[in-house]
Amino acid sequence: ATSSSSRMIEKETLEAHRPDTFLRESDGVASSSVDSDSSVRARFEKMIMDAQDSVCAAIEAVEKGKTFKEDVWSRPGGGGGISRVLQDGAVWEKAGVNVSVVYGVMPPEAYRAAKPTSDNGNVKPGPVPFFAAGISSVLHPKNPFAPTLHFNYRYFETDAPKDAPGAPRQWWFGGGTDLTPSYIFEEDVKHFHSVQKSACDKFEPSFYPRFKKWCDDYFYIKHRGERRGLGGIFFDDLNNYDQEMLLSFATECANSVIPAYIPIIEKRKDTPFTDKHKAWQQLRRGRYVEFNLVYDRGTTFGLKTGGRIESILVSLPLTARWEYDHQPEEGSEEWKLLDACINPKEWLEI
Amino acid sequence: ATSSSSRMIEKETLEAHRPDTFLRESDGVASSSVDSDSSVRARFEKMIMDAQDSVCAAIEAVEKGKTFKEDVWSRPGGGGGISRVLQDGAVWEKAGVNVSVVYGVMPPEAYRAAKPTSDNGNVKPGPVPFFAAGISSVLHPKNPFAPTLHFNYRYFETDAPKDAPGAPRQWWFGGGTDLTPSYIFEEDVKHFHSVQKSACDKFEPSFYPRFKKWCDDYFYIKHRGERRGLGGIFFDDLNNYDQEMLLSFATECANSVIPAYIPIIEKRKDTPFTDKHKAWQQLRRGRYVEFNLVYDRGTTFGLKTGGRIESILVSLPLTARWEYDHQPEEGSEEWKLLDACINPKEWLEI
Repeated sequence: ATSSSSRMIEKETLEAHRPDTFLRESDGVASSSVDSDSSVRARFEKMIMDAQDSVCAAIEAVEKGKTFKEDVWSRPGGGGGISRVLQDGAVWEKAGVNVSVVYGVMPPEAYRAAKPTSDNGNVKPGPVPFFAAGISSVLHPKNPFAPTLHFNYRYFETDAPKDAPGAPRQWWFGGGTDLTPSYIFEEDVKHFHSVQKSACDKFEPSFYPRFKKWCDDYFYIKHRGERRGLGGIFFDDLNNYDQEMLLSFATECANSVIPAYIPIIEKRKDTPFTDKHKAWQQLRRGRYVEFNLVYDRGTTFGLKTGGRIESILVSLPLTARWEYDHQPEEGSEEWKLLDACINPKEWLEI
Repeated sequence: ATSSSSRMIEKETLEAHRPDTFLRESDGVASSSVDSDSSVRARFEKMIMDAQDSVCAAIEAVEKGKTFKEDVWSRPGGGGGISRVLQDGAVWEKAGVNVSVVYGVMPPEAYRAAKPTSDNGNVKPGPVPFFAAGISSVLHPKNPFAPTLHFNYRYFETDAPKDAPGAPRQWWFGGGTDLTPSYIFEEDVKHFHSVQKSACDKFEPSFYPRFKKWCDDYFYIKHRGERRGLGGIFFDDLNNYDQEMLLSFATECANSVIPAYIPIIEKRKDTPFTDKHKAWQQLRRGRYVEFNLVYDRGTTFGLKTGGRIESILVSLPLTARWEYDHQPEEGSEEWKLLDACINPKEWLEI
């Protein structure tokens, strides 16, 4: 039941059926025949759809009964997405796993927001046609001892700007997986980081240290002087490696989500807790909101390009809290978490 | 008990005693002798301190027992502020009333964020010395039938940029008072707007219609296509009237806060409510957070200029909620509120 008011402001159409692909025929793929000869666009789309299926299945297996609600949407300009949300479950208060495949034309300021770190001297003044596909997920558990997980893997191509038709097509990969607990269990954080490191090490020894630091730098809430959580890996604008290698790497990272996260959830989901633990979790959820609305490139990019708001903001927790000038007692468990958010640690060297 | 980590990142110093003035002696005022010969800076500072006292007293009178906590802070660059917060009261879950008087040097991008609507062709490239004084308040009640109130009145001066010492000093006033209910009681909204109109009409008949529309335009959550609440008045960059007149007008507006708001609170604070009403209030609080973190100029200006974070973010509610794709049933009380946020009404013509 979509009210007339919300239909007015959303540019997406809800679809009754899920398509096999959101790709255009010009991308050279029949939906049933994605193989290694297919375009990177087609294979990336298949990878994120498979990852969505397997992550949702793993979550439903833990939830034992509660299932995801699926919304399929398309955009008039091309492409669409599949949003899956499980809300108010037994284990997760909100779990969102979205894929989207979008064709569009970016205003120059959105192009800069999406890709500010390189080519700055090179930004074309006109609108830039783009292709963007990605999987994005935030999983907020109920139990304050069970951590929030975020992961996002995306592939991006820009066509030649319309006023410079001869210019080459550009592509890049981005993504990451990061953990946001309210309380530190060192063994959990080590396990999580070691799975990230293993995925990285299969491709390039410099990846883990580089992407671990990139993650610490990226999820920085500047006005607080602290990170939103305990990191993981993050990379963006990655195109200075073999394209096939980066496609495999993104696939490996997406496939590492379940082994990195689900064992931690199994261990912590039923830990007894008090109101004090819950209030601290809620305060940390408030920081999560601050990061996502003020700094996150995916969110600000989505808001600027008029993406589907409900899919973009599904990353926000079901509930959050802001207390004036809350200061955890020095040496307390809450203080230890805050300290690790202020001073990132090398978890695998502890 | 400020932890070492937070001391590291805040540039403000907490003071044990409240000064009579934050002004510099060069502003030509002895703290005990503010009269009509005093500078506009001095009289504006006295006005906002008086307004802070009277609004806090009115709130404490309703709270019957719970009182505000006061923090006084100063900045090494000059000036300071008084933050007063009442949290988890009987009537308000969070009530913040802050005054600040700040001297500083703005980076050019902050200058543009603070004053984008005029003088755009005129922006000096170098850092701009400024004086800013204001009162800012957000009052979030517990009862879902009692509305949130925000008001903010501020006075701003820039000195000549350091690389253009001959340029004239500029000044302007800004501010407004607006109401954010979760449920509409038409008599409350009419009462609130009629008090705003009376304050405006004492000065200039065009003020109410103009500032009412400005308020509807300003508190717009673009990515939602809706306003955060039911408006009131808002103005900014106001300098094309007599300076004394605008000082009197800002004073009148600040003095109108109590008669506009407290009678509504008295009427609604004890209304029985259900979990459904509370959940809707919490969703609207989520929209409040979205507006403040993504669009509000005062907040984004504060975050950019390194203002005192706890004072800036005291505007955020104690608790908020985000449900995926929540759509109120057409014709319901929740739908009526949302409709009025999407299509602003002329409350005094109903």
